[in-house]
Amino acid sequence: MAVGQCDFPNMLNVAGITLGTACAGIKQTVKDDILVFQMAEHSTCAAVFTQNAFCAAPVHVAKANLVHRPRWLLINSGNANAGTGEQGMQDALQTCTELAKIVAGNANQVLPFSTGVIGQPLPVAKITVALPQAIKNLAVNNWDKAARAIMTTDTFPKGVSKVISIAGQPITINGISKGAGMIQPNMATMLGFIATDAKINQPLLQNCLAQAVDQSFNRITVDGDTSTNDACVLMASGCSTATEITANSEHYAVFADALISVCKQLAEAIVRDGEGATKLMRILVKEAIHDEEAVRVGKTIAHSPLVKTAFFASDPNWGRILAAVGRSGVENMVLENVQIFLDDVCIVRNGGRAVDYTEEAGQQVMDKEEITITVNLGRGDACQEVLTCDLSYDYVKINAEYRT
Amino acid sequence: MAVGQCDFPNMLNVAGITLGTACAGIKQTVKDDILVFQMAEHSTCAAVFTQNAFCAAPVHVAKANLVHRPRWLLINSGNANAGTGEQGMQDALQTCTELAKIVAGNANQVLPFSTGVIGQPLPVAKITVALPQAIKNLAVNNWDKAARAIMTTDTFPKGVSKVISIAGQPITINGISKGAGMIQPNMATMLGFIATDAKINQPLLQNCLAQAVDQSFNRITVDGDTSTNDACVLMASGCSTATEITANSEHYAVFADALISVCKQLAEAIVRDGEGATKLMRILVKEAIHDEEAVRVGKTIAHSPLVKTAFFASDPNWGRILAAVGRSGVENMVLENVQIFLDDVCIVRNGGRAVDYTEEAGQQVMDKEEITITVNLGRGDACQEVLTCDLSYDYVKINAEYRT
Repeated sequence: MAVGQCDFPNMLNVAGITLGTACAGIKQTVKDDILVFQMAEHSTCAAVFTQNAFCAAPVHVAKANLVHRPRWLLINSGNANAGTGEQGMQDALQTCTELAKIVAGNANQVLPFSTGVIGQPLPVAKITVALPQAIKNLAVNNWDKAARAIMTTDTFPKGVSKVISIAGQPITINGISKGAGMIQPNMATMLGFIATDAKINQPLLQNCLAQAVDQSFNRITVDGDTSTNDACVLMASGCSTATEITANSEHYAVFADALISVCKQLAEAIVRDGEGATKLMRILVKEAIHDEEAVRVGKTIAHSPLVKTAFFASDPNWGRILAAVGRSGVENMVLENVQIFLDDVCIVRNGGRAVDYTEEAGQQVMDKEEITITVNLGRGDACQEVLTCDLSYDYVKINAEYRT
Repeated sequence: MAVGQCDFPNMLNVAGITLGTACAGIKQTVKDDILVFQMAEHSTCAAVFTQNAFCAAPVHVAKANLVHRPRWLLINSGNANAGTGEQGMQDALQTCTELAKIVAGNANQVLPFSTGVIGQPLPVAKITVALPQAIKNLAVNNWDKAARAIMTTDTFPKGVSKVISIAGQPITINGISKGAGMIQPNMATMLGFIATDAKINQPLLQNCLAQAVDQSFNRITVDGDTSTNDACVLMASGCSTATEITANSEHYAVFADALISVCKQLAEAIVRDGEGATKLMRILVKEAIHDEEAVRVGKTIAHSPLVKTAFFASDPNWGRILAAVGRSGVENMVLENVQIFLDDVCIVRNGGRAVDYTEEAGQQVMDKEEITITVNLGRGDACQEVLTCDLSYDYVKINAEYRT
C-alpha cells in the first residue's frame, strides 16, 4: 500500500540509549504494543507537542515532566488515552508510577505517550503487567522492534539512522516515527522518537528540535487532521566521545542540519504510509512573499480532496490545482505571474492553461508514483515544500472500518 | 444516492421572468445544457460571486455587466470556461453577443455563467447554434427544465418556490441551484438562480442577497473546495401587484426572511446531493464568543475527513469530533466547559467522555440518515449552523472518474 521503497534501515546503536518492548494486549492482535526508552544519567531531553486544545492526558503529563530531566519514555499503541478526562490523567500518572517502581526511579522522570483509539479508558492493569518484560528487554539494538511497537494503522515501521562527524569523532542520530492518519502535525507529528549520543544542553537541544520539526513534520499532511497526541522527542545521552555541541559553533550547524535531515526522512515516511496512499506528492511553492504564504498555498493544495482524488485517478485534472491556488487566500495575487508545473511540464501560465501543454504530457507525469507539483507565485523569494499523498478508496475504507 | 426526500416541488410562475433551455451538445450525453433567463424591462438584478482568485471568465464578465441593468442570464453546464485565459474571456463575451443578436438586446445586458470541467475551451459554436432554440422555448413555466439543464454531477434537480404576502398582495420567490462537488461556497454557491416578482431597487436587492447567501450557501461544505465559478443571482421583475419593498420597512423584513428561507433550502439540497453523500450532518455550534468563531468550529468539524468517514461508517467515533474541535484554533478554550452532543445524546462533558454516554446510545443516533452534532463551547452567546455530508467510497469514485 505504501508509496515507494520503505525498507527498515540497519539502525546503529546509540550509546546510552536502550529500548525494550513487550505485549500488553492492548490491541486485538498479539503484537508488542508498549515500548520503554531508557536514557543514561545526565542525558538531556527535548520535546514538542500537539497544539490540539483537546490534547491527550499523556501529553499533559509529558509536558509537565519534561523539566525533571527525564530518564524514561513509556509509549503504548492501541489506545490514545485522549478524551478520557480526569481518569485519563490518573491513568497516565499511574503508568509512570508503575514504571518508576521497577527501575527504582522517580515517576516524574517518566514521559508517557499514547497513540490509538480516542476516548477509551487506558488499560492500566494490562500495561502494568507487561512493564517488567519491557524493562527486562532493554537493549541498545531494539530499534526495529521499537518502531514496530508504536505502529497503529501504519503498514511499515519507520526509521532513520545517521552518523555525523564532530571534529573527527562520530555522533549517531537515530529516529523512529509512526503515523498514517490524522496527520497534519502542528508543532509535532503523531509520534517521533529521536536519540543521539551527542553532548548538548537541554535548551539548545530544544531549539534544534523545534527548528527541525518545523522544517519536516510540520510540512506534511495526509488528511488535515491534527491529532490530540502528536509528540516528537529528542534524547541526547552525551555518551559520544565527541566534544559538546554548543551554541553558534560550526558543530551546532552540522548537528542541526543532520537532525533536520533525519526528521525530514521520518516525516516523508509517514506520508508514504499515508492511509490508503498510492502516490506521494511534493508540493513546492516558490517565489512567495514569505514562508508562511508558501506553506499556506502548499497546504491548500495538499488538503484539497478534489486534487487528491485526481492524483489517485492519475488524471491530469490540473484545473483543480489552479482552483486550490485561487482559493488559498493569497492577497493581490497577479494571476498572469503564476506558473504551475507537474514535474517539469508547465500546465498553467499567463492566467490559464499553458499554450504548449498537452494532455499526453500531463498524463505521463500523472502515471508516476511520485510527483512534484511546483507553483511559482512570481511575487517574492520564499520557497517551501509540503508533502502529501492522494485520497483513495482505501483511505475511506481504513477510516470507515477503523474501530470495527 | 442523495440523502432524504428530494422531489422537485411544484414551482409557481414568477411574473416577468421567462426561462428557456436547449441542448448544445456540450456534455457527452444528449441533455439540455444551456439555459436562458429573460427578465421583464425595469427588472432589478443582484449577484454575488466566488472569491476564488482564479475565478472563471464568465464570472469576470458577469461582474462587469451587473451594472448595466441585466435583462438576460445565459448559463451552460458541462464546461466551466475557467483556467482558459484570454481566450476564455473572448468566448464568454462572444456568447453574450450571440444572445444579444437574437433578442435584439445589448451584449452587456447579458450575464454569462458556466459550470463543468475546468480548463477546456468553451464550445462557443455549439452554444451559438443552440441559442435560438433556447430563446424560442422561453416561457414562465420552465423551472423544472431549467433546474435540470444546469446540473453536472448533481443527481437531482434543486428548486424552491415560496409565496409571501406583502400588505395582502402575493409575491413569489422561486429559486434553483446546482452543485455537488467543489463545495465550500465563499460569498456564493456553485450556481443559484433566484427570481421574484417583487418591486425592489437594486442596492436593496443586493443587500438582501448578500445577507441571505451568508446565512445559507456560505454555511455549507461538501469537500472544502471553493469553486472558480460560484455565483448566485437574484432577479426581481417588479411585475407583482404588491407595493415596492423599501429599506427599513416591515415588508423588507418579511421579504428578507423569505429569501433566507429559500436560500437555506437550496443550500441544504446541495448538501443532500453532496458527491457520494449518504448522510446529512447539521453542525450546530452554540455559546461561541462570536459568529465567526462558531462558523470556524463548525467548518473544522465539517472538513475533517476522519469525522466524515466515521459518519459514513455510522461509527460513533466521537473522539474524532473532539479532536476537530480541539484543533479549530479557538483561543483559551476551557475544555471543562465544552459539551458535545450527537442529536440529544451527550458524548463529551467535563473534558472527556460523558460518564452517562453509552456506545449503544451513540450507535442509535449514528444509524440515522440525518444527524445533528451540537457543540456547546460555553463561552458566549453566538450560535451558527454549518451543514455537511459524509465522505464515502462514492465521493472518491465520482471524483477519480470525473473526466473519464
